[in-house]
Amino acid sequence: MADTAYKIVGSRPVRPDASDKVTGKANYGADFSLPGMLCGKVLRSEHTHARILGIDVSGALAIEGVKAAVVANDFSFLQPGGMGDLVRDNFAHEKVLYHGHAVAAVAATTPVLADQALAAIKVEYEVLTPVMTLDDAMRADAVILHDHVFTQGVEPPPGTPSNIYMRDEQRSGNISKGFEEADEIIEREFSTPMVHQGYIEPPACLATYSENAQSTLWSTTQGHFPLRESVARMMQMNEASLKVIPTEVGGAFGGKTAVYHEAIAMMLSKKAGRPVKMQMSREDIFRSAGPGSGSICRVKIGARKDGTITAMSARLVYDSGAFPGAPLAGGMRSVFSAYDVANVFVEGYAVFTNKPKVRAYRGPGAPQANLATESVINELSERIGMDPIEFRLKNAVREGSTTAAGTFRKIGLEECLIAAKNSAHYQSALKPNQGRGLAVGFWKNGAGVSSAAIHMNSDGTASLATGSVDLSGTRIALAMIAAEELQIPVADISSVVVDTESITFTGNSAGSRTINATGHAVVGATRHAIEQMKQRAASGWNVTPDQITWQDGKAVNNNNGDELTIKEICRTAPSTGGPITGKDSLEAVLGLGPSFSLHICDAEVDPDTGKVSITRYTTVQDAGTAIHRDAVEGQMQGGAVQGIGWALNEEFIYNRNGVLENPGFLDYRIPLASDLPMIETIVVEVPNELHPYGVRGVGEAPIIPPLAAVASAVSNAIGVRVTELPCSPPRILAAIEKKMESK
Amino acid sequence: MADTAYKIVGSRPVRPDASDKVTGKANYGADFSLPGMLCGKVLRSEHTHARILGIDVSGALAIEGVKAAVVANDFSFLQPGGMGDLVRDNFAHEKVLYHGHAVAAVAATTPVLADQALAAIKVEYEVLTPVMTLDDAMRADAVILHDHVFTQGVEPPPGTPSNIYMRDEQRSGNISKGFEEADEIIEREFSTPMVHQGYIEPPACLATYSENAQSTLWSTTQGHFPLRESVARMMQMNEASLKVIPTEVGGAFGGKTAVYHEAIAMMLSKKAGRPVKMQMSREDIFRSAGPGSGSICRVKIGARKDGTITAMSARLVYDSGAFPGAPLAGGMRSVFSAYDVANVFVEGYAVFTNKPKVRAYRGPGAPQANLATESVINELSERIGMDPIEFRLKNAVREGSTTAAGTFRKIGLEECLIAAKNSAHYQSALKPNQGRGLAVGFWKNGAGVSSAAIHMNSDGTASLATGSVDLSGTRIALAMIAAEELQIPVADISSVVVDTESITFTGNSAGSRTINATGHAVVGATRHAIEQMKQRAASGWNVTPDQITWQDGKAVNNNNGDELTIKEICRTAPSTGGPITGKDSLEAVLGLGPSFSLHICDAEVDPDTGKVSITRYTTVQDAGTAIHRDAVEGQMQGGAVQGIGWALNEEFIYNRNGVLENPGFLDYRIPLASDLPMIETIVVEVPNELHPYGVRGVGEAPIIPPLAAVASAVSNAIGVRVTELPCSPPRILAAIEKKMESK
Repeated sequence: MADTAYKIVGSRPVRPDASDKVTGKANYGADFSLPGMLCGKVLRSEHTHARILGIDVSGALAIEGVKAAVVANDFSFLQPGGMGDLVRDNFAHEKVLYHGHAVAAVAATTPVLADQALAAIKVEYEVLTPVMTLDDAMRADAVILHDHVFTQGVEPPPGTPSNIYMRDEQRSGNISKGFEEADEIIEREFSTPMVHQGYIEPPACLATYSENAQSTLWSTTQGHFPLRESVARMMQMNEASLKVIPTEVGGAFGGKTAVYHEAIAMMLSKKAGRPVKMQMSREDIFRSAGPGSGSICRVKIGARKDGTITAMSARLVYDSGAFPGAPLAGGMRSVFSAYDVANVFVEGYAVFTNKPKVRAYRGPGAPQANLATESVINELSERIGMDPIEFRLKNAVREGSTTAAGTFRKIGLEECLIAAKNSAHYQSALKPNQGRGLAVGFWKNGAGVSSAAIHMNSDGTASLATGSVDLSGTRIALAMIAAEELQIPVADISSVVVDTESITFTGNSAGSRTINATGHAVVGATRHAIEQMKQRAASGWNVTPDQITWQDGKAVNNNNGDELTIKEICRTAPSTGGPITGKDSLEAVLGLGPSFSLHICDAEVDPDTGKVSITRYTTVQDAGTAIHRDAVEGQMQGGAVQGIGWALNEEFIYNRNGVLENPGFLDYRIPLASDLPMIETIVVEVPNELHPYGVRGVGEAPIIPPLAAVASAVSNAIGVRVTELPCSPPRILAAIEKKMESK
Repeated sequence: MADTAYKIVGSRPVRPDASDKVTGKANYGADFSLPGMLCGKVLRSEHTHARILGIDVSGALAIEGVKAAVVANDFSFLQPGGMGDLVRDNFAHEKVLYHGHAVAAVAATTPVLADQALAAIKVEYEVLTPVMTLDDAMRADAVILHDHVFTQGVEPPPGTPSNIYMRDEQRSGNISKGFEEADEIIEREFSTPMVHQGYIEPPACLATYSENAQSTLWSTTQGHFPLRESVARMMQMNEASLKVIPTEVGGAFGGKTAVYHEAIAMMLSKKAGRPVKMQMSREDIFRSAGPGSGSICRVKIGARKDGTITAMSARLVYDSGAFPGAPLAGGMRSVFSAYDVANVFVEGYAVFTNKPKVRAYRGPGAPQANLATESVINELSERIGMDPIEFRLKNAVREGSTTAAGTFRKIGLEECLIAAKNSAHYQSALKPNQGRGLAVGFWKNGAGVSSAAIHMNSDGTASLATGSVDLSGTRIALAMIAAEELQIPVADISSVVVDTESITFTGNSAGSRTINATGHAVVGATRHAIEQMKQRAASGWNVTPDQITWQDGKAVNNNNGDELTIKEICRTAPSTGGPITGKDSLEAVLGLGPSFSLHICDAEVDPDTGKVSITRYTTVQDAGTAIHRDAVEGQMQGGAVQGIGWALNEEFIYNRNGVLENPGFLDYRIPLASDLPMIETIVVEVPNELHPYGVRGVGEAPIIPPLAAVASAVSNAIGVRVTELPCSPPRILAAIEKKMESK
């Protein structure tokens, strides 16, 4: 368990950004404006799959007040693959690959003029057959999206273009021998639809191009440094000539790691010579921003009667949409990594369809695969007559276990299973029409590159500057780490997300990496500042820094107990060697802290309507050390709720022409507070040995088990195995009716 | 002369900010907006000196759309002196001290509503007699501005309140003995009016207060860190809770080192719960922003016939306006520091009058005193029949000379005098009605606290972050220094002014300190980055960093000539130890580089109208090393032009009620391009030994000689000694007529 000697870490200080966010004062992507600013708008394809024969923007440019028009050809890199795909994803080139794919953009002095300009653009298409399902895409005689793409990972490559752009596999042990050793084997196939990340704030940006000075881009993004790299490459600018300022982010969940319109806005600004603001409408987002991948996952698991799993195999197929982006790696790494099993085989496929390119969505790829694994594990434990927690305990990975995610150091899966078993929820009884499901999720967690600097102010307060966009309260957690190191009140530290010119490269806030990697850099930067403050004190006392102890926000002279407070040291710093800044930059890959999450779901099914109500829900998770306890619990609850929505109601519904039929939150139903019980949380703390504060990362793991937990609870309630999400009323009612018929 | 081995330093690359500034794309103080933003406006006193009996803002607050009103009492620190004066200067408290002194402010949804609100505020005054001249202010029976202020620096203090808030003196040698040794003595008194800095961009700010998170302030300022300190103190916030973002600055010249309305905007935002933008009108600026000090300076100089100056004495009186701010120190330090004279006495007085508090204006205090010194020096050289340059060469300070500015290291006064003597201009003949004047100016130059960081991008370009606002092209000059160190093209470095959270404390861009002090920090930061890049290369080659040479933007292995380019090192940096940042912070006081400027002015006076035309003007200046040659010449030209305006036409004209009668650029005449000849420049380079690039600072010195140079040229042309500025046509015509009458 966590070090109880911490004074600040593990507490629940109020987030500084909270009041501005709830009172509407916080400034998001669409909240910035500049004089002379134009409104940028995008013309989107009305076809799902078509060849572009011509685009004529002259009608648009003839309208007074229309200052610029941009099409794919305005960008230099258009070769398919790599950087060219960045452009082709933003702007259809040669072919339109999904309904809503951008074909042109304009900048005008008013939104009305911009709309008129879009209407005046003439595009000539040759309409092609759309490919909308994974099965259609993978057929031998499939209509092909990209003529230049051949199946990857298959030896030898078949030599003909394919919609399967990637195949990968993992093996360990002897999979056929493993199944031979099993007393019981269950194999099932599960499918999940494309889903939306459900962020509230639409992507928005403001771009202002400068011929000689720095161009500036404001954007709601999960990572302004990666965004700068992408936009600079698309615009053929060097990185130093582009400043990206991240705004507050109103939800992202992986969906804001992409370039949606930033390069378009910059190109419009370059052509028009004025700033250009762009905002996606909610419909634009649903039709063309990147959703989470749909999947078909087949899992086969064999076990002996004593509960030992002898073999596990899986075939994971992910829908990538129109460009490479399927979360194959996340799925393959996660599908079986909670279990220490000798014989494992996993094959994975990433497949193009005529839908928008998928993007990351919390724990990308893992929830889909986990639905299959954990549903089968639950069924298998039932089959061999073993408590599902005991069955998992019997096979759980522990320190020293090796899976596709590597060999584990100290991890907390066993502790989570025991906590779940001892929970009031697990020991409670069910009522009629209720079922219980549980599932264990694994996420390796991210690390990557982060930087931090702490600037000591003359009044002894500090500005903690990082390049990690705050999606979930990371600013306060990082301030807590710095405050713990400095031993000063957390209120004396302002934790600020600074722009690309004010710190060095920092990766996306994604993959649950921020408090691990950036937190690690914060520790380094703060210790660097403390070291300098000790030096200043030592020099004043004419002793060496090793004779100084940093204690309670003071430098203490070990020889005589003399003290200098942080305020005193900082006030005189300019004349004792200059103002003090501590800094650190690192790639935290060595400090990775894998985490496990276990969810228990009770669901009640109305047998007359098929409506599922979640009656009780508990999340158990190894957070490593919980830095900000509210934030950790919030992540666990939020992940659970998003997973519940995915399990119960959420899905992208395409008609046969490939047109999305529910592009908005009225028809695409995410859970409301009133739909759910309080999500109970049990925080397990097994510190990550490789991190100075034991941090693992908490954001991804909680979205992984809900699909299986909910589907298993519903299955348990209705007595029919649910293999297709979402568990929407018509589908559940049909399952109930089918079961009644078969009786 | 400067090190000719420099590749970049000393050249003239195009300023990156140039095209944005001339095309109107650059964003200044008034160019930022936020959603829900209110318009803040200030009610200013119609009286020049009055007691405030009551302020009633209820009528304003009753207007729909008026969201907040603020008066002095809303601030906590109101005690006279120190921080209290910061508030009292921003808002009249108890007494109104000048016409235009703010008494209340409002924030409303529109400017029209804000104006209505101001009209609805009721203020009750008891009108007092205004004190408008230095003579009136210093009388024994003077009306007193501040009852709590007693004369400082006089022993024993007289015990009664005084408008003379400071008296100071310097002595060296024996002043009476020195005058006894003189063959010729000249004593004259000179006066100069209050003048405006003449910046084009009116002060403007945008403030948004946050209860728990950081409050943010955008402002056009010469120093966002000092501004943060002032606003934080006035608002009783800690520094970490306030972020200040500096905007582009459209001229400042010392006038934007003050808090004009930033704390008022922040307090309005706090009360209203919304962002508040404030802008000063041109009239507001003239009536209430701080002008440059008016003065009465009496100088007495004695010399032997051989040209040796035996004694110099001065009595300098500076008008401070309504609060302490007179540039006494700058005047006293500069008045005689070009001359190595044994017997010197200077006394100085700082005096309150019922005018706005004076602020810095290029070389604060020095031009006024210089007018007296150099006019008398010119007259004395004429009297003893010596060429004025020879006379100055005879007495000039050199390495080892000690004055009120300290003991000089290597300086360039002698070189400037010789360059002037050899110039085509000095050797040219004058025409009828023309006169020639010359003057030497001295400025110690500033140093102070600066910080810099250089963030290496993954493509090998760099972002150079400093806290020094760019008033004059300092960004490009700092980039040139970093490029010279890194040995890469200057276009690969973006030089960026970052906000208060993104670097540590940096003082104002003022006192010609930026390229000296911040440039010094840039050298430190860049060398720190190079050191890390050498370490990365060394570690890859398995050698020690001392076996690596940094050359042409590459790390070179001394053992075998292997090379790694900056691009290669930066691309792999994340995985070789993290992205690379170099940083440095320092107090550059030890690297001070005093500088001298010599101006030669030819003026032609129309004997019928008294109009003065400048026919030829040459500036000679020791720049230390000229980093960006255009910028150095631009500073020399700009300083000369401002000084010429001061000498010829500029003055604040108050009526007897203390109301400024020329509050705008129509009636307050600054020189236009068409008024002036091309200002010729001769850049002398005697590098400052204490600076890594030999920088001295070039911004202040060129405004110091023009008052004396122009006045002496006019005196020479009309044969009457001009002792009162400006040399406006009526005054010159009167002098000519008086001379004719006396003939």
